[in-house]
Amino acid sequence: MGELCVRSVLVTGANRGLGLGLVQHLLGLPKPPQWLFATCRDPKGQRAQELQNLASKHHNLVILPLEVANPTSIKAAAAKVGEHLGGSGLNLLINNAGIVKITLLENETLEDMTEIYTTNTVGPLLMGQAFLPLLKKAAQGSPGSGLSCSKAAIVNMSSYAGSIEDVYVWEFGQVVSYRCSKAALNMLTKCQSLAYREHGILCVTLHPGWVQTEMGGSSESFKPPLTVDASVQGMLKVLSSLSEKETGTFLDWEGKILPW
Amino acid sequence: MGELCVRSVLVTGANRGLGLGLVQHLLGLPKPPQWLFATCRDPKGQRAQELQNLASKHHNLVILPLEVANPTSIKAAAAKVGEHLGGSGLNLLINNAGIVKITLLENETLEDMTEIYTTNTVGPLLMGQAFLPLLKKAAQGSPGSGLSCSKAAIVNMSSYAGSIEDVYVWEFGQVVSYRCSKAALNMLTKCQSLAYREHGILCVTLHPGWVQTEMGGSSESFKPPLTVDASVQGMLKVLSSLSEKETGTFLDWEGKILPW
Repeated sequence: MGELCVRSVLVTGANRGLGLGLVQHLLGLPKPPQWLFATCRDPKGQRAQELQNLASKHHNLVILPLEVANPTSIKAAAAKVGEHLGGSGLNLLINNAGIVKITLLENETLEDMTEIYTTNTVGPLLMGQAFLPLLKKAAQGSPGSGLSCSKAAIVNMSSYAGSIEDVYVWEFGQVVSYRCSKAALNMLTKCQSLAYREHGILCVTLHPGWVQTEMGGSSESFKPPLTVDASVQGMLKVLSSLSEKETGTFLDWEGKILPW
Repeated sequence: MGELCVRSVLVTGANRGLGLGLVQHLLGLPKPPQWLFATCRDPKGQRAQELQNLASKHHNLVILPLEVANPTSIKAAAAKVGEHLGGSGLNLLINNAGIVKITLLENETLEDMTEIYTTNTVGPLLMGQAFLPLLKKAAQGSPGSGLSCSKAAIVNMSSYAGSIEDVYVWEFGQVVSYRCSKAALNMLTKCQSLAYREHGILCVTLHPGWVQTEMGGSSESFKPPLTVDASVQGMLKVLSSLSEKETGTFLDWEGKILPW
């Protein structure tokens, strides 16, 4: 496996956690993307400060406002990305934005179930639709008949918590709304892989590991096993190695296939 | 496998299709339920006429209004069922109500994704919460430590279309909103099985087969392979045979375990 080499990338939820880690590592690649679009809900807010600092140093980094639960916001971002890219397409869409609420089955509500599904599952579906023309264009502009992340790909950030077979770390958190949204995201990825294969677009769903982020539950007294750096390095290595054989699969940060 | 023998049952979406078939077959059992609650959105409407006809002949059949996408409606129905049952519990909850829209991935919308998830996935979650006290009561009132549908059980009506592994009949209909909702329902069932096992409640998710119903796509020119009678007979036989070994599994109408 070599280093990932991709002309244009978009990462959602890029202001912190894994999203920010992905942006940092993509910028640090031997051949960084010519265009790196980093989106978050509020690019001018306090919580996007690190991303702003990066943008002041890296002129290939473009920060855009994007709320993945809002179709209008998605369409506006797709139009802006299209303008930046001129006539060329978008090679790699990483649907990283996601939310969790620490809940027990007994206190899940219609509102929480809906909110989490909208962001974690419907968001990636709408992103795929809105960026499909740019992804198709990237695939058409790349030589060869195979699939790869350098050519055109959708990467959905899932979680092993969304494995129905294993129901990973149930004792740590029931988070049924989150698990349901990620199982559905895995189904979406499989469907996207079937529908978009003819357009030359690879689709995978990733488990980043249990990572030391706000979402992972990092605190003074508890640290998940994996650093952001280790997870992101692993995922980028996996992405660099993907071919048509892996489209529609569920992989972890080390490239291991996980059960649905 | 003997015939299903269960004191009290509730079936949602009972005015047509598989729900109505379940009610008819339950009423026709050698030992029919003492209480059979059949719910639908509009019990007085034209589309509930067959159910009304059955109720005029069978005094163990109670029809109740219930909209599974509405928490208030669910709570009201649970209170009414509790009143009917007096001091005893509810043995078997069959979350049968479900909807589908024939869609392509490219024209799925936030609205459709949300509507279908709310009815097909959130509804069964809220039903489980609201009827949990009655299911617990039924489990406590039944002898033995094992699990069974005669004792206390939640049966979620899923679909093989919700199998991420197989993406059943993709060529026939992409129906991504439906597939995502059923994959999530399968995850919910697994979570319910883990959370409710200690209360003596069995939980399974069923694929009824591809059945000649409105939802199955029956028309003059096309008939799915299975009749409602064959599907319902098969499912009731499967339910009669379930034990703690099967809780948290995904079974078809013949008892075959399906891949997630």
